[in-house]
Amino acid sequence: MTKTELIHQIKSKNSYLCVGLDTDLKKIPSHLLKGNDPIFEFNKQIIDATVDYAVAYKPNIAFYETQGSKGWDSLQKTIAYIPNECFTIADAKRGDIGNTSAMYARAFFENMSFDSITVAPYMGKDSVEPFLQFDGKWVILLAYTSNSGSSDFQKLKTDNMPLYEQVISTSSQWAGDDKLMYVVGATHSEEIKKIRSLVPDNFLLVPGVGTQGGSLKEVSEAGLTKDVGLLVNSSRGIIYASNDADFAQVAGQKAKEVQQEMMSYIELYC
Amino acid sequence: MTKTELIHQIKSKNSYLCVGLDTDLKKIPSHLLKGNDPIFEFNKQIIDATVDYAVAYKPNIAFYETQGSKGWDSLQKTIAYIPNECFTIADAKRGDIGNTSAMYARAFFENMSFDSITVAPYMGKDSVEPFLQFDGKWVILLAYTSNSGSSDFQKLKTDNMPLYEQVISTSSQWAGDDKLMYVVGATHSEEIKKIRSLVPDNFLLVPGVGTQGGSLKEVSEAGLTKDVGLLVNSSRGIIYASNDADFAQVAGQKAKEVQQEMMSYIELYC
Repeated sequence: MTKTELIHQIKSKNSYLCVGLDTDLKKIPSHLLKGNDPIFEFNKQIIDATVDYAVAYKPNIAFYETQGSKGWDSLQKTIAYIPNECFTIADAKRGDIGNTSAMYARAFFENMSFDSITVAPYMGKDSVEPFLQFDGKWVILLAYTSNSGSSDFQKLKTDNMPLYEQVISTSSQWAGDDKLMYVVGATHSEEIKKIRSLVPDNFLLVPGVGTQGGSLKEVSEAGLTKDVGLLVNSSRGIIYASNDADFAQVAGQKAKEVQQEMMSYIELYC
Repeated sequence: MTKTELIHQIKSKNSYLCVGLDTDLKKIPSHLLKGNDPIFEFNKQIIDATVDYAVAYKPNIAFYETQGSKGWDSLQKTIAYIPNECFTIADAKRGDIGNTSAMYARAFFENMSFDSITVAPYMGKDSVEPFLQFDGKWVILLAYTSNSGSSDFQKLKTDNMPLYEQVISTSSQWAGDDKLMYVVGATHSEEIKKIRSLVPDNFLLVPGVGTQGGSLKEVSEAGLTKDVGLLVNSSRGIIYASNDADFAQVAGQKAKEVQQEMMSYIELYC
């Protein structure tokens, strides 16, 4: 998907919501467990119920991998089911030496036609480059993550700036804002302004609103640009809002609430 | 596997060789492609031919993931086939927020009974801890990798030491040398002495000998301890030494040559 197409969808839906598909057999409504592929059935109903309010879907690959080859099938069916207009993110946090990263890129971009993949920066340029070789595909590089462990190494001072700024500054030389986004946790809304000055035109993928404690309002104030420039993820707060037969309907309501709030910020800041 | 069991195997085989199973359909002998599961068949013959000389096997997960659910089946069959005496490494370079890392840990430690997994440190303590909660299982944390991109961030100065030393120093507080190893590329044999002073008793997993240019002699001089303390990986140099019907036999010969060289270093330095 091109950046223009992504922005077009965001503006037509008045939303920058990404729905995280962290689909866990232990958490989905029990009536689905009788079916042949409960994970796909859950995702299908969630997608149907939220697609008017969400511009992106982000399956968390760990949740599929833990089901072995069956989980891999559920993932492939899910990605094929998501409408083409939506931006798809493989939340995989991969990254390895060049020939291995190339294998991961083929797995997610060619075999499953994801639009993007999250990548860990620790191994440097040649671990990221293979993911940048595909037309219309994106790398979403971890910068300053939402979890408590983000303070262990990402905040360390290197050359008068924290490591996460160095990661952004260095990697922004590797590709343009038409192929490269950054993960910045909603728990760091104060730092988003500084990050915006480093990469004014790159999209930021922001997890950590809701269960993890980040504020959509603060993130939006700090991060929105004239082209919106944000994808804010919500997983558990939407997909597990109800555990009953009405789970999809409630997920749709929750997604609509978030979208309505986002629309107000788009009107204010974009 | 416990550290005592690992050392016992190393001393009984006089070897610290890890064979990397980077099994690629485009590189394996063409006569295998007619079978039902060429990847597993290749691995099976490689394991049979090398098991007297190798103490560990390291499937590179990307190579299986790129085959989708079929690749996942090949991986599960491979890990089940490797004899219990051998140490198994899921070279996956995973690492995510706590609940997601816990899913990856279940995928590799419970569903597939790997002894260990390679983990990327960028997301910090709570991304690594879920992998440390399993008895007899190991984390092999990326420290100073063998690729050229290792100079982009891993070498950056933080608090008067390069980031990779900081990663080792900080993470060595999270678990003992009975659960935690480090990845240090053979291309950095000069730095291994300094790393040894930081973690004198932790095993190091050393990739990058052979195709990537590292020297087994230099790595062994710098890194061996009284308990050996090294696992040196070779992938392409062994498994693709021949592309003909004799591939397994030639792989066995290559593994034996490496083991013989290792035996001489064990006699000298351990």
